[in-house]
Formats: sequence, structure tokens, C-alpha cells
Amino acid sequence: MIAVLKQGTDEKQMENLIAWFKGQGLDVHVSKGEFNTILGLIGDTAKIDIDLLQGLDMIESVKRITEPYKNANRKFHPDDTVVEITPDIKIGGGHFQFIAGPCSVESREQVLSIAEEVKKAGASILRGGAFKPRTSPYDFQGLKGDGIKLLEEAKKVTGMPIITEIMNANHLPMFENVDIIQVGARNMQNFELLKELGKTDKPILLKRGLAATIKELLMSAEYIMAGGNQQIILCERGIRTYETATRNTLDLSAVPVLHELTHLPVVVDPSHALGIARMVKPMAMAAAAAGADGLMIEVHNDPQHALCDGAQSLTPAQFADLAKRTREILAVVNG
Amino acid sequence: MIAVLKQGTDEKQMENLIAWFKGQGLDVHVSKGEFNTILGLIGDTAKIDIDLLQGLDMIESVKRITEPYKNANRKFHPDDTVVEITPDIKIGGGHFQFIAGPCSVESREQVLSIAEEVKKAGASILRGGAFKPRTSPYDFQGLKGDGIKLLEEAKKVTGMPIITEIMNANHLPMFENVDIIQVGARNMQNFELLKELGKTDKPILLKRGLAATIKELLMSAEYIMAGGNQQIILCERGIRTYETATRNTLDLSAVPVLHELTHLPVVVDPSHALGIARMVKPMAMAAAAAGADGLMIEVHNDPQHALCDGAQSLTPAQFADLAKRTREILAVVNG
Amino acid sequence: MIAVLKQGTDEKQMENLIAWFKGQGLDVHVSKGEFNTILGLIGDTAKIDIDLLQGLDMIESVKRITEPYKNANRKFHPDDTVVEITPDIKIGGGHFQFIAGPCSVESREQVLSIAEEVKKAGASILRGGAFKPRTSPYDFQGLKGDGIKLLEEAKKVTGMPIITEIMNANHLPMFENVDIIQVGARNMQNFELLKELGKTDKPILLKRGLAATIKELLMSAEYIMAGGNQQIILCERGIRTYETATRNTLDLSAVPVLHELTHLPVVVDPSHALGIARMVKPMAMAAAAAGADGLMIEVHNDPQHALCDGAQSLTPAQFADLAKRTREILAVVNG
Amino acid sequence: MIAVLKQGTDEKQMENLIAWFKGQGLDVHVSKGEFNTILGLIGDTAKIDIDLLQGLDMIESVKRITEPYKNANRKFHPDDTVVEITPDIKIGGGHFQFIAGPCSVESREQVLSIAEEVKKAGASILRGGAFKPRTSPYDFQGLKGDGIKLLEEAKKVTGMPIITEIMNANHLPMFENVDIIQVGARNMQNFELLKELGKTDKPILLKRGLAATIKELLMSAEYIMAGGNQQIILCERGIRTYETATRNTLDLSAVPVLHELTHLPVVVDPSHALGIARMVKPMAMAAAAAGADGLMIEVHNDPQHALCDGAQSLTPAQFADLAKRTREILAVVNG
Repeated sequence: MIAVLKQGTDEKQMENLIAWFKGQGLDVHVSKGEFNTILGLIGDTAKIDIDLLQGLDMIESVKRITEPYKNANRKFHPDDTVVEITPDIKIGGGHFQFIAGPCSVESREQVLSIAEEVKKAGASILRGGAFKPRTSPYDFQGLKGDGIKLLEEAKKVTGMPIITEIMNANHLPMFENVDIIQVGARNMQNFELLKELGKTDKPILLKRGLAATIKELLMSAEYIMAGGNQQIILCERGIRTYETATRNTLDLSAVPVLHELTHLPVVVDPSHALGIARMVKPMAMAAAAAGADGLMIEVHNDPQHALCDGAQSLTPAQFADLAKRTREILAVVNG
Repeated sequence: MIAVLKQGTDEKQMENLIAWFKGQGLDVHVSKGEFNTILGLIGDTAKIDIDLLQGLDMIESVKRITEPYKNANRKFHPDDTVVEITPDIKIGGGHFQFIAGPCSVESREQVLSIAEEVKKAGASILRGGAFKPRTSPYDFQGLKGDGIKLLEEAKKVTGMPIITEIMNANHLPMFENVDIIQVGARNMQNFELLKELGKTDKPILLKRGLAATIKELLMSAEYIMAGGNQQIILCERGIRTYETATRNTLDLSAVPVLHELTHLPVVVDPSHALGIARMVKPMAMAAAAAGADGLMIEVHNDPQHALCDGAQSLTPAQFADLAKRTREILAVVNG
Repeated sequence: MIAVLKQGTDEKQMENLIAWFKGQGLDVHVSKGEFNTILGLIGDTAKIDIDLLQGLDMIESVKRITEPYKNANRKFHPDDTVVEITPDIKIGGGHFQFIAGPCSVESREQVLSIAEEVKKAGASILRGGAFKPRTSPYDFQGLKGDGIKLLEEAKKVTGMPIITEIMNANHLPMFENVDIIQVGARNMQNFELLKELGKTDKPILLKRGLAATIKELLMSAEYIMAGGNQQIILCERGIRTYETATRNTLDLSAVPVLHELTHLPVVVDPSHALGIARMVKPMAMAAAAAGADGLMIEVHNDPQHALCDGAQSLTPAQFADLAKRTREILAVVNG
Repeated sequence: MIAVLKQGTDEKQMENLIAWFKGQGLDVHVSKGEFNTILGLIGDTAKIDIDLLQGLDMIESVKRITEPYKNANRKFHPDDTVVEITPDIKIGGGHFQFIAGPCSVESREQVLSIAEEVKKAGASILRGGAFKPRTSPYDFQGLKGDGIKLLEEAKKVTGMPIITEIMNANHLPMFENVDIIQVGARNMQNFELLKELGKTDKPILLKRGLAATIKELLMSAEYIMAGGNQQIILCERGIRTYETATRNTLDLSAVPVLHELTHLPVVVDPSHALGIARMVKPMAMAAAAAGADGLMIEVHNDPQHALCDGAQSLTPAQFADLAKRTREILAVVNG
């Protein structure tokens, strides 16, 4: 960590600060320039609160050199983490998976029929929302526990592992047969939930928050990992910008950046990011080309009947085409 | 609600869509233009999922006319809500309060001494963090239940009502003697928490999320209000932008915008938004000039001893000056 | 265009407004709802100033249905524009080109050697900055006219057409032998410059501004096209967001969105967007997968000698690898 | 300037880099840590290109300590700049001015009548757009030279100095009798224009770009000042964020931040930032409370006749009220 002192900081104050750093177990290298003095802090600076430090009157700026995530940091864990969902289905380290299914679980028939179709088209993991985080309290909030039971039934019939979102740690008992627990963008910094998930032994898919930096995403992964659970899959799903042509701005550069900073696998959810079904395929192909370890795609069954359920969803046939094209891209990337 | 159909939508599809809207209990006015057909939807459109609708192939765009918040909407409740903390201390409708105290509760001595000092300087409500949402799992997470007990003690000694942040609905029993429960920016869309708070009868201070629009803030207030609790205080605390000179960008226009859209009181937290103690006073004065119903200010006790606790905090003397100057501004605003 | 009137607008005001719209040559359809009245405006609404309209007290909101760009609008020009640089080198409508070269033209030797190398590696158009828009007045501002002459020399030797940036319409005479004139992000809304370029007959590569929406980019293209020059190539080069891990956030969804809204070709510049040379290759591949019509890549010659010139630049060997891999992606996209 | 080297940088490369820095006339202090080596660079680092440096493979990160603006930097010029428009009308260093007038100059009658009225209400400088930067080429582009002549006439009649926007340095001869030349947000980084303005001796009002950081605004001021013209007035007019309730987000914290970083005066334009006339007054008062040195307010004459010209404009009566209220705030701020 580097702390730059303001011009004119008095000697006494500086000595106090240095003494305090030493009290925190850090070594301090002082380097005096014409206008500023620079303190180089060596040691375990992870516990130093950078915001608080930045607020001191004598400080011009502070900069971390070593990022305060350790479990998630590729520097300390150079090899790719491979998250094993089942013995045959792995994500990361060269293993790529299609996660597909409906936005919301609505009925037994719906989820079973979509599950069969996406499996045929190449998806290996079934997604479906049972607890739905909705901006409005008056919107449909999901089938909740009953939705999870329908997913479990689809799992039994198709053999596909299932992923669904958790919104409350108190619901964990209902997730016993869920294979991957999803943390949604809005809960990326629900630290109480993250801590509880750190105590489980289930793979966690952690979505990037709408306004989360890549480093904050890693710190949230660190919350889970600090609790003992190392099976984390990161998910880029679009960030909030001033652009309104798409629902969010899919930040595909996050894929190579994350691959450099962390050993954890990275999947991309273009459906939520774009919010426009006909744009999902090119962005899925682009995500694969950028090096993603998987894709999460919304698929709905029957556009005629599910009149208002098609916003960001593809039909099974469209998904099959997307999966075929994406595999061709993957062949190039891996070839 | 207005739905604009794409050029070339076939008659049959349009009729299906209209039939579906009617099935939802809405009246539909059709207006055909040269390039587009516009459907005007009249009735209770709050339950229509705008994102899903937007995703239909035949839809060019959708726009809500009536916002889907009702309890929070000034259209339906023209009079200002006055949140009564104690019979003497009210927020909103012309009542302005200073909420002040330390970022984190650290010790009995600290909280009691700050409480006495901010009371003397004109604060009427004591703030202090007991549960601390920290980006890093390795940072200090607060004194938790013990912190709340210290706040209660300060309340007993000074007579000031207290406000502190909740991060988990399971902790509610610990908040029994807390006067205002704060929901932090990171939990603004923790809908499970909001629902539980809707069942309590305590005033809730709801902070705007880092990337939350003003309308999403109102929808989150609506989550609490839909549960029966109407005592909501909204809090602007800075939004995330590309500007890095301040920690966040304090959006003071949110104050007059919120006063137009809702009857709920609006307080401003310049300490967190700016992250620079010496900028807090001018922005506090500006917030008052913009029409805020209160200010939330971080105050720490002794900069010499609390070496690393001064980032965004003022000393009691600086707070006293801020409060004095702000009251002069308020005299102009109200005069 | 749709204008929604506020609840309680008086009849007289509304009639004045309708009369005014009719005076502008528009047809007005009135549709009265419970809370609002909606005016549907039919006709040439391009000249109506939406911001001014939005400001009227009686107006709740205004929404354009038909976008005010005409020349650039795919609705009116369904076929892809193919920009012909030379009889053999075209961009758009299935034609993909690599544009490569140094950030700044520095010397005869540098530009000739890079030109030869990128040509060998598959680039068909040579780029190089002669006039450099620099944030600081103290930074190197480019070789200016001399830089263009060096590019012309490289063109003569290699046969490659050249592209370079213009910052001032008064410099146009120097661009006589330049094949594509580039408008940089900072000048995307330098309307005086755009108008002058509309009078030329040279292909223009128009970069998206740092905070420009996709629609504003199209309006800027429209400025040039309204002057008579239809040979526009659009360029996505990253937008400004709160994320700091990359210099800007490359918005690859702009590629499919632009392909839907306009017939103009779209190229992507990952070098400037990312600012990190080792991330350029995956994002170039992703851009091709997303459907881009070309790539603009910075290449420098000798990292040993050009010590401080490597920020976002690849070596020729790295560029050759990028081009090879991207062509494999293109084979999938076009296959 | 501080450069942090990556872990594992080889000794030889580091020595080359150090040699290169020394060749640039800098002193280099090396400080080796466990994971990283830090180079402290002392001397005139303004000419080092930070982006290029950041791109080197061996560099983990680079940070400037001394900002590369000199003329605009308060460190080197501690006293407030006072821009003298006329002997009686000054901005900065305790002098506050109201700049008011119509968005566009439309007619002799309009500009004369508004000028008289805003003068009566307390404005000391008349604004009016003659050259209008419009997003659409089909929108009204202003009366141009004729507009400036009408402003000159109003100046003669009322004695008020005038300010109007320049879009093209070739137009400078028309600005001979203009008292303050405005550079609009879209031209903040039109460096060719800034350089030409640096050669004039007229006060320049420089608006912050839509996506410009505070430091970039200062670098643009530096462009003008490096040319010899030190009479710069900075103007905060809203930045682009994801929030859509207001046209832009007025960043009032820029006022105290700029006052700390620079000696130049700062005025605020709430009309353009908000885009909603009824929100202008509270934000004008807030700007004054935050320490602004002036306000720029749009005023239009007759809402009945100028039906579509009222978007962000106040009537003269509303402006008079705003000016009165703001002066009361100023009395507090200065008292």
C-alpha cells in the first residue's frame, strides 16, 4: 500500500502516522519528494481501511498494491478453479457449460417441457427462478418453495443439475437438492447472505451487481470463500450506464480481466444484460470468443401462449441455434 | 401505459395482444399512425411487467404513464408525511432534524462523549453503526448487538432517539429500543428485508442504492409501505458515476424531484457521498438550500486518538459550525 | 411522437398546444385516460424539439416513436451500406477489414516498418495519428502535416489506403490523399467539423463519444449525411462508466444494436477501449463474433526502443496472431 | 509520480525503465517490497504520458502525485482569480454574478425585452445563444452572426456585458464585442478551439463536458491558459449518469472540489443540468450555498407566445424570485 502525504504535513503528524502503521504490524518505507512524501507500506495491509485512511487531513491519496482478496486472487492460486457440479459437468479450466431455462418457474408442464428441450439443444444445467427479486412489490414474486420442487422434478426426469436464486439465508433448507445456488445482482453485497453461503458446501454462482466494480465482485466472492466455500462461479450480467438502447451494458472485458485477477470461472448472462431476445445470440457468441467459461440463457416454451413472457427469452429452437453457433466459436477459441 | 407496436406487426398478433390486455382487466385505445400503431392502456397497469412486455417481438417500446408506486405517490397522497420519532422530534412537512454520530460504535466512552457533544451542537438524533456492511470480509464488522446496547445507553443518558443500520431481518429483536431502523444503500433492493420491515411499526430510513434510480428508490419504499408501515424517510447518499474526485456523486436534484413525486421526507447524507470531511459543510448547506428535511452527518470524537477513523467524519466543533451555518440557510429557506 | 399531459391540465391550455402542433403540420390524436391525456402526433416530428416540449408545465412526458435520423435509418434504407475504400477494399455488407498501425506517426522508419509488417499480417488499411487530441496541452501533439506525409509515403510503398484523424476543418487540404478521415470520440459532437465533412466525398470513420448514446452517434452520422456524404463508418471504442479496471467499457452490444438501427458499417477499436495490450486479442475476437465489420488495432514496432509507446499497442507478431484468430472467428460467423 | 512494477519483473527491464526515466530528467527512488517494487519519480513528470506508461507489460499501476495542470493549479497560485468583465462586474474571489437570458436569441424584441427584465431582477450579464449546438442537424441552429448583433444591441441599450457560445474558431471575428466567450460542454475537448481561445484576451466561460472528470475540465482550462489567456471561468452544468429523472445530474460537489484544486472561479448552470424549469430555483439556491461564484440561468419572455420555448426556462418573474432568494442564501454564505 502506498500513502502519499500532503505538501506541508508536519513532521510530528507524520511520525504519529508512521508509528500507527508500525503498530498495525507494517513496515514503512519513507520517500521524500519535492512536493510530497510517499509512504510505502509493506506487510498485511488487507485490514487497513482505505476509505478511512483517505479521509485523514494529511493524506493526499492512498493506493493499494496488493488487492485485499486472497482466496480469490490468482497471484496466490495460479491454477484455474474447476467447479464440479456433477462428476461429468464441470465449469472452469477449459470446461464450458450452457445453463438454460425459463426466467420464472410457472408450472410443472412448462418447466418439464423446457428442460427436455434445452437438454436436447445442448444445455447441461437447468435454470429457473423460484424466488424472484422484483423491483415492484406488486409484481409476481415466484412460486417459491413450490417452484424449487418443480425444478427438482425436472432434474429427476432429465438428469440435469439445477440452479436457482436464493434471496434469504433462512430459505437454505429448501435448497438442499439444488446443485448451484445463485446470488442475484441485487444481493451481491448482501453480506449476511454471503456469509451464510460460505458455510455451505454447494457451488455458488455470484452475479455482479448493477454498479459493482470487478474488484467489488471479487471481494464479495471473498466473503463466501472466507467462510470456507471455495466453489464460486462468477457471472457478468451487465452494468448500469447512461446507455438506454439495451437494458444494461454487458461488460465483456470483465471476462479477460477476471481471468487475469482470479482463478475462479466466469460465466456470462447476456439475456438479462441485453433485455432484447434477438440480440442474445451475437452476444453469447461474443462472450464465448472473449473466453467465458459458460453461458446462462433464458429460454421460454411457447411464445403464443406465454404472451407476456418473452421479453428476454429465446424459444428452444432459437436456443438450439445459439448453442450450435457458440460451440463453433468455442472450437476456434480452444483450437 | 402506452405500448408502441412495430411497423409491420400483423393484425392477428395485434388482436391477440389486445385480447390479452383486456384479459388483464385493462381498456385498450388503439391509435394508428403512418409508421406505428400506439396502444393506450387504461386501468390498473401496475401489475403489468414492463420488461417482459418490452421483449415481445411486435413491441417497439413501452412507457408507463402512472408509476407503479401507490403508497409513496404524491398524486394519491398530496400532503407531506411527517414521521414522528418522538412527540417532539419529527421529520418532514417543515420539520428538519440533524442526525449525527460516529460511523461505527467503538466503545462506551466514544459513543457517550460524541452523543453529548452532538446534542449540544444541535443534533436531535444519534446515529452510530453497530452492524457494518464492509466491502471486505477482513474489515471490522461492527460491535453488533453490543454496539446497539451502547447506543441504548447513550439514549438513556442524553434522551436522544437513536438510529442504526440493520443487515438481516433475523436481527430485528435486537432493534426493539432503536427509534429509526436504517436500511443501507447495499440493501435497498434486499426485498426480503424490506418486506419484514413492512411488518414493523418503526420509522425506517431507506438509503438510495449506489446505482438506484429515484424511481427504484420509491419502489423500494413501496415494498415496505405495502406491508403496512408508512413511516419511511428517504435518504440521498450519493450515486456511482465515472467521477473519482469524490467517493460518490451527491445527487442533490433528487431532493426537489422526490418532493414532487412523493410525500415522504428526504434527508441527505453528505458524509458518505463525499468521503472528504472538509467538503461536508458546503454540501450540507447546499442540501438544506435544496429543500432537504434533514441531514445525516458523521462525527468522531478525537482525531488524535482515533487516528484512522477520520475519513469522512467531522470533529464535534466542526459539526457545531456546520449545524449553525445550516440553520442560517434553513432560516432563509423557510423564511 | 407521443406527448402525455399532466393530470389536471386545463382544457384551454391543451387546445392551445394542439393548435400549435397542428400549426407545425402535425395530425394530433387525443386519447383521454383516467389520470392522463395522451396526444399522438403524426407527421414529420423530426423538427420538434423534444427537450423544449418536455419543459412545458402541462407535459408529463414526451416520447419519440420515429427517430429523427433519416439518412442513417435502416427503416428507410434497408440494405447494408458498403463503403468502398478502394475497388478491392470495402467495409460493410459482409466485407471485413483490419485497420492497423501505430498510435502516433513518429518517424519515417517507424511508419514504414509497421506498415509492411501489418500488411503481411493481414491488415488492409494503415492507421496512424498525425494530429493527436491529448488531454494535456503539454503532451506530444503529433507530427501534424509531416505525419500525414509519412503516411502517404507508406501508402505509396505498401499500396495500403490510409486513415488518420482530423481535428480542425481548416486542415482538410492536408487530407487530400488520405483515404478515410477519422473523427475522434472528443469531436463526435463538433458539429461544425461534421458539417464540413458532409461536403467532402471521402469515407468518414466516426468514433462514438465517451458519453454518447447510440442514438447520438447516429445523429452525428446524420449531420455528415445531411450534407451529402453517405460514406460513413461507425466505430465503437468504449464508453465511460464507473468501472476502472479497463480504461473504458467496450460496449459490444452496440454492434448488434447499430446493425438493427442503421445500414452503416460498424467497426470496433478494442485498443483504446481497453488500454491494456494483453486484453486486446480476446476483445477483438469477441467483436468479430458480435458481428463487427472491421477492427481497428494499434500496433507498435519495437518494444525495446519505443519504451513508452506500448500502452495499448501490440507488436506486429501479436497482431498477426490476433488477425489469424479473428479470421477463424469470422469464418464461423460467416459460415 | 509513482510507478508500481509487477511481481517478477526482471532486473534488466527495470534498469532500462529507470534509465529511460532518468533520460527524461527525472530522479528515481526505488523501494522494494515483498510482492512489488515501487518507483518514486521526482521532477517534472507532466510530460510523461501516463496511459502509455500504464500499458507497459512490467507496470502494475501508475499514479500521478502532482497533477499536470500548472496554470490552473491552486498549489502554485494560491489566490483566487478574479475575472473582470467590466470594472464593476467581476466573478470570483467573493464576486458573484447572475448571468441570465434566453436559450436562443430569436428576435430583436425578444432579446431586448428579456434583457431589460433580467437586469431589473438583478442579473448583471446577458446570455443568449446565437450559434446553437444541436444534437440533430434538422433542429434550429441559431441566428448566428445576426444573433450576436442583436445581443450587441441589447448590450448598448441595457449596458449589460454579453456572453454567447462559440463553436468554430473561424467565427472569432464576430465575437469582437462579446464580453465573455462560452465554450459549450460538447466542445470542452475541442482542443483546436481551446488553443485559439488561448490567444485571445477575452474572458472564457468553459463548460464541463457531459462525461468529463473534474481533472479533465482543469486540463481543458490549462489548454487555454497555456496559450496566455488566464481569464477562465469554469462552469458545472451536469454530468451524464444512469439517472433519467433529470436531464443530467448536477454535480454540486464539483464546486468545493474545484475551489480546492484551482484558483479559477466556478459558476453553475442549473437550467441545462435539470431540464425542468420548476427545479431550477432550489438548485440555484443550493449552488450558492455550496459556494458557487455565479449562476447561469435561462429566462424566456412570454410563455403564452413562446409555446415551445419553455423547457428549461423561467419567466422573468420567476427569475426575479430566484435571484432574490439566492441573494439571501449568499448573505448567509458570505456572512
